[in-house]
Amino acid sequence: MKADNSPARGMRDLLPADVATRDHVLHAITTTYRTFGYQRIETPALEDINRLQGGQGGENEKLIYQVLRRGLPDTVEATTPTRDLIDLGLRFDLTVPLTRFYGNNHADLPTPFRSLQVGPVWRAERPQKGRYRQFYQCDIDMIGEPTVLAEAELIEATTAALAAVGLTDVTVRLSDRRFLSALATDAGLSEDTWDRFFIALDKLDKIGWDGVRAELDKLGFSADSINTALDKISSLQDIPVEKLADTLTATVPSLADDVVADLAATTASLDALARQRPLKWEFDPTLVRGMGYYTGQIFEITHPEMSSSVAGGGRYDKLIGRSLGKDVPACGFSIGFERIVGLLTDDIQRNATAVLTESDVPISDALTVARSLRSADRVIEVVRRSGKLGAQLKRLQSSGFSTFVLVGIEDGELKVSDERSI
Amino acid sequence: MKADNSPARGMRDLLPADVATRDHVLHAITTTYRTFGYQRIETPALEDINRLQGGQGGENEKLIYQVLRRGLPDTVEATTPTRDLIDLGLRFDLTVPLTRFYGNNHADLPTPFRSLQVGPVWRAERPQKGRYRQFYQCDIDMIGEPTVLAEAELIEATTAALAAVGLTDVTVRLSDRRFLSALATDAGLSEDTWDRFFIALDKLDKIGWDGVRAELDKLGFSADSINTALDKISSLQDIPVEKLADTLTATVPSLADDVVADLAATTASLDALARQRPLKWEFDPTLVRGMGYYTGQIFEITHPEMSSSVAGGGRYDKLIGRSLGKDVPACGFSIGFERIVGLLTDDIQRNATAVLTESDVPISDALTVARSLRSADRVIEVVRRSGKLGAQLKRLQSSGFSTFVLVGIEDGELKVSDERSI
Repeated sequence: MKADNSPARGMRDLLPADVATRDHVLHAITTTYRTFGYQRIETPALEDINRLQGGQGGENEKLIYQVLRRGLPDTVEATTPTRDLIDLGLRFDLTVPLTRFYGNNHADLPTPFRSLQVGPVWRAERPQKGRYRQFYQCDIDMIGEPTVLAEAELIEATTAALAAVGLTDVTVRLSDRRFLSALATDAGLSEDTWDRFFIALDKLDKIGWDGVRAELDKLGFSADSINTALDKISSLQDIPVEKLADTLTATVPSLADDVVADLAATTASLDALARQRPLKWEFDPTLVRGMGYYTGQIFEITHPEMSSSVAGGGRYDKLIGRSLGKDVPACGFSIGFERIVGLLTDDIQRNATAVLTESDVPISDALTVARSLRSADRVIEVVRRSGKLGAQLKRLQSSGFSTFVLVGIEDGELKVSDERSI
Repeated sequence: MKADNSPARGMRDLLPADVATRDHVLHAITTTYRTFGYQRIETPALEDINRLQGGQGGENEKLIYQVLRRGLPDTVEATTPTRDLIDLGLRFDLTVPLTRFYGNNHADLPTPFRSLQVGPVWRAERPQKGRYRQFYQCDIDMIGEPTVLAEAELIEATTAALAAVGLTDVTVRLSDRRFLSALATDAGLSEDTWDRFFIALDKLDKIGWDGVRAELDKLGFSADSINTALDKISSLQDIPVEKLADTLTATVPSLADDVVADLAATTASLDALARQRPLKWEFDPTLVRGMGYYTGQIFEITHPEMSSSVAGGGRYDKLIGRSLGKDVPACGFSIGFERIVGLLTDDIQRNATAVLTESDVPISDALTVARSLRSADRVIEVVRRSGKLGAQLKRLQSSGFSTFVLVGIEDGELKVSDERSI
């Protein structure tokens, strides 16, 4: 009887063509990041459940695959808290493990440390088309760098990595959490309402200005404060780079000078970069980014073919401190790996060569012929002849073969044809 | 306060130098396998718990990390079977997922299908030095090939992969499960005792001939059958290749002709290969290999620096059938990836270049200088100048830098030095 061979719910198998595309993208991205000095690290897939549920992960903490303690009895006692049955969980992102990693290994790492992480994360989300419960993330982080060298370089490296996979038509959107705080202050919002205000603002892409107004109204914000805040925000859209600092200072008086100077330094770097290669960028006062841990500049990269961003990140100077016991400045950028793979449609060609071997040829001879043709950059596959040659060649072509040799026995001697195109 | 930042028990963090070594090994192995036509696939880390505990995994099934069902209440009801709380588990090998994968995707795969799998597996083993609860496996399998083309090619490809990482001084040990069965028959052992007999024989490496005799005696085997079986086995050691078939037939009369022919074909291939590149191999009548699912030839590769094998595999013609509902011939070879990485001691050099930037240089200029030096095969890292130059260069050298340029401001102008060795 045939069993149900589907992967676990919300998961998927990756076939050779899928893996080839993904490897191609991964190789392009990691090779680019490596030229900037980012070095790959790896952490275990499983982390202590208390660490995963430590409050850094927001909504993702509800989606953790939790792992049963080993050595439990066959039957669970009455009224056991479910919580007591588990001790580990599968990571839901690469940032929580990174902060633990840095806390554990910082003595052996340079300052600043340029980290590159690529690997699967797991989230028990409601299954939906094109989204899976195991998916790859691809993060770079610079830990220990207090200046916007981090921000400017992370943005340059990530746009270079995207360009290496053919995504050149991208736009960088830049803002700063400290700008958002100053704006909220100047709009007269009390600090305990900021989170709600920005969560509503973050929906602008989906629900538009009117939708944001309605939501803020429903949340109990006064018409006055809504108008003041949203007017300031919309007046800061599409500001030319040379006027940005002055306009920011005039519109948001409580904005600190160093925040303006930081934004000026990052935009000057983007401007210089845009003079050397195609790059669009903008200061985007509506940019919020979900995670609560950002403390400074935040950024996203968008692509015209995608409704959501293809990469996002920002500065998080207070997160490492929770593991290490003292604050270390840090900044990261995460590429939406699965989205990018989804944008690419071209299959990677194998260009393999078939050593088509008649059934009377000793296996040892077939392998020897294949060996004589094989080299580091050639795929040589021994294939046993079967059925009509034309039909077999057609099948071979569809599985990535471009040439073949025929190996047979004639008059008791091994006969190997020239290599021919399929 | 500093938290405990250790990885979960029995797990480990991989630092940049660790990952570089591992990537080097993986690249050499997968590049070699690819030239033989093996294509990488990926399956999810999580599988249905019933599949993982289906009896193919032997002792490993007791070491599964089990995953709690989602959406359970906060408190578990009285006397709930622990079993009812879980639905998934982390894979403990790559073979069980491969059989499911083939069952699920065989319509989209060529025949034979050459599969390459590389990835982590998880086993909740008792922690011990040098062994971790998450570790990589690296398997190739040929599915759908009934002849020993599979065995001969898998052995050639795997010794080539090992040679690519510098392991040339290896010995291939070859046997056949059907030979072991015939031997047990001819020694007068009843079929229900074979498993126990071979489990004892499998310990020969560790406990020697006397130890095996003592263990068989303790298990209740008669002195007569022990002597007959072990005498036959030891008389088949170190047989020259040209005498192997005749000696086998004479010593184990119930051995079927096709088993002898298969062994002759594989050994002929190994012999031909050994004439082209350094390779030692032997028929080893004491080879058992643990897994119960093998049905034909079995093989291991040993290295003088390792007490256990560096690779092992064999034919398993009845395993795919449990998923697919009809038998498909299959053969696999698994490299002990972690053991091989442990054998390598040389660090991979980064040869990075530092763009050493004085603090008064605008970030934008530092990035522009770095960009002008960067290319696909060069690592260019912006580093801010700090402290004494000599001391900083020393630190840089120890983190993989071999050259540097100095970037400063002189008379209000950007000044970039020539590139110098550290």
